[in-house]
Amino acid sequence: MTSIDHGAGSSPVPPTIATIALEAGVSVPTVSKVLNGRPDVSAATRARVEAVLAQRRYQRRRSRTPTGPRLLDLVFHELDSAWAVEIIKGVEQVAGTARVGVVLSELGGAHRPRQEWLDDLLARRPLGVILVLSDVDPAQRRQLESRAIPFVVVDTAGEPPVGIPTVGSQNWNGGLAATRHLLGLGHRRIAVIAGPSDVMCSRARIDGYRTALDEAGVRVDPALVRHGDFFVQGGYDHGLDLLRREDRPTAIFAGSDLQALGVMRAARELGLRVPEDLSVVGYDDLPLTEWIGPPLTTIRQPLREMAGTATRMVLSLARGESPSNQRIDLATELIVRESTAPPGGV
Amino acid sequence: MTSIDHGAGSSPVPPTIATIALEAGVSVPTVSKVLNGRPDVSAATRARVEAVLAQRRYQRRRSRTPTGPRLLDLVFHELDSAWAVEIIKGVEQVAGTARVGVVLSELGGAHRPRQEWLDDLLARRPLGVILVLSDVDPAQRRQLESRAIPFVVVDTAGEPPVGIPTVGSQNWNGGLAATRHLLGLGHRRIAVIAGPSDVMCSRARIDGYRTALDEAGVRVDPALVRHGDFFVQGGYDHGLDLLRREDRPTAIFAGSDLQALGVMRAARELGLRVPEDLSVVGYDDLPLTEWIGPPLTTIRQPLREMAGTATRMVLSLARGESPSNQRIDLATELIVRESTAPPGGV
Repeated sequence: MTSIDHGAGSSPVPPTIATIALEAGVSVPTVSKVLNGRPDVSAATRARVEAVLAQRRYQRRRSRTPTGPRLLDLVFHELDSAWAVEIIKGVEQVAGTARVGVVLSELGGAHRPRQEWLDDLLARRPLGVILVLSDVDPAQRRQLESRAIPFVVVDTAGEPPVGIPTVGSQNWNGGLAATRHLLGLGHRRIAVIAGPSDVMCSRARIDGYRTALDEAGVRVDPALVRHGDFFVQGGYDHGLDLLRREDRPTAIFAGSDLQALGVMRAARELGLRVPEDLSVVGYDDLPLTEWIGPPLTTIRQPLREMAGTATRMVLSLARGESPSNQRIDLATELIVRESTAPPGGV
Repeated sequence: MTSIDHGAGSSPVPPTIATIALEAGVSVPTVSKVLNGRPDVSAATRARVEAVLAQRRYQRRRSRTPTGPRLLDLVFHELDSAWAVEIIKGVEQVAGTARVGVVLSELGGAHRPRQEWLDDLLARRPLGVILVLSDVDPAQRRQLESRAIPFVVVDTAGEPPVGIPTVGSQNWNGGLAATRHLLGLGHRRIAVIAGPSDVMCSRARIDGYRTALDEAGVRVDPALVRHGDFFVQGGYDHGLDLLRREDRPTAIFAGSDLQALGVMRAARELGLRVPEDLSVVGYDDLPLTEWIGPPLTTIRQPLREMAGTATRMVLSLARGESPSNQRIDLATELIVRESTAPPGGV
């Protein structure tokens, strides 16, 4: 075996606060202040200490008896729709039982947190952090690690960085099941509207779609493969565009329930009936999907369970335990309702 | 003027921690521990100290330099639907700008918090508490007051207790506007499905409905006045029941957007078209209501602004300022879309 990167192991003696202070040219209490996120340190000093902490890969040992309130940070890249409510409920349930308070933040659509937000989080000293569809950059990751604050990612936006525990669902299988269902009804012109192309779970769903078409001997038409934003507007815009084509699809796998709502509105505006003229499959199984007209065929994603699993994981890491699994994907399931039918009506 | 209750004023000398300790037969540090929500006090001692604190109406002076993380508690009686997301976003926006962390709790459908939850909250020492559709009982209120933790109620469930600042919206005007709109279209058989009868905002909406009928000279038919739960199922159940009547209503004011969804599903199942055979008005203007088929006529409730106002109010109380207004009701607005039309079709 060749040595590539030993991480903390490459430094024979783990650094202490004293060695950090010496190297940064500051006092030991100043290093403590930076580690505890105290505001009474100048920005320049803080930056110097952070640089040495990162360079020396300083990692605080986990305190057995944390003082202060027992908190957990739950971070959304964007707080929107019933989707977020399901995640919050899953976290609340597990955290509530453990009597841990959940601090909720929204990054306003940004996939990476701002430094100011991270400073406040470090000052709170939470037991751990759950990031939903967000990533931290390597410098921010080092800052969390140097304070021994564990974090878990739910539905990672990008490629999950090595060593960060993640919880997701079987997106590839979900895309496969949705597309197989439509093929089984007799559809051949099947479009897909996924989420953003740089979001992993979105790409996995498209790959499942491709594989299903492939095993049925149906060629993938690139004009029928779209990327939306997971929200209603994306489904509406792509839906209108797809359904105005002369060779319009007879079925659309909408990639999310919200996008399915947008597709159904586009169909209504063009005078197309669902499912007689167009079959639509959503993704998520949000509580409202069984109530809309027609009730939506969708892929159930166990959002509450995913959130609960992530919470148990981060609380276990906070107790100093090692996770048995760095990557957990929960199963997805096809829920057939009334928005899908054979092409050309039943 | 006759004296009824002077509150803290009836005791000539405000109690100190020392007098509380003396009366409770404990040490001064023990009283401090109880006030700070520290766990290392026996339940019996804690109860004795709490009793003396309540009896002597002890009230801590607000600390000018709070130590520990700057937190705000946001408490829902039940976390469900896009309704809650709007409230959360409104709180996050104001709290985020003030760099205050938002701790979110759900009481699992209970309108009053459990004591265990309150103990944990007291230990966190938040700057303030925002209760959404929840109340605290007088003993819990005293506990918050004795720690100088201010609280604000959004959309109070019951009668707002005197002296507790509340933020709501003009529910009575909303009920009035919804019903006037239907009357203006020519409807006379108009049903209403409000929320629970013990929730104030629900009763105000029904009173607005009654007044609108009254001013149009239409008699209120008690069989057409219903109480749901604000959720989809309530709208569906009452919708089915109302629409199966021989003298079925030609319009339903559904009391919430979710109940409107339920009513629309009931109509679909009975083969009634919206708006041709039945007009439906919702309440809230949740983001999804413009996307469903048909897009919903509804009363816009400024949920984000209500939550933002409550947050500014509680942060101002935390700075020791007195609110200029104990009760703020923001305006509601009729949004006409496609779910309403004259009776018997356009």
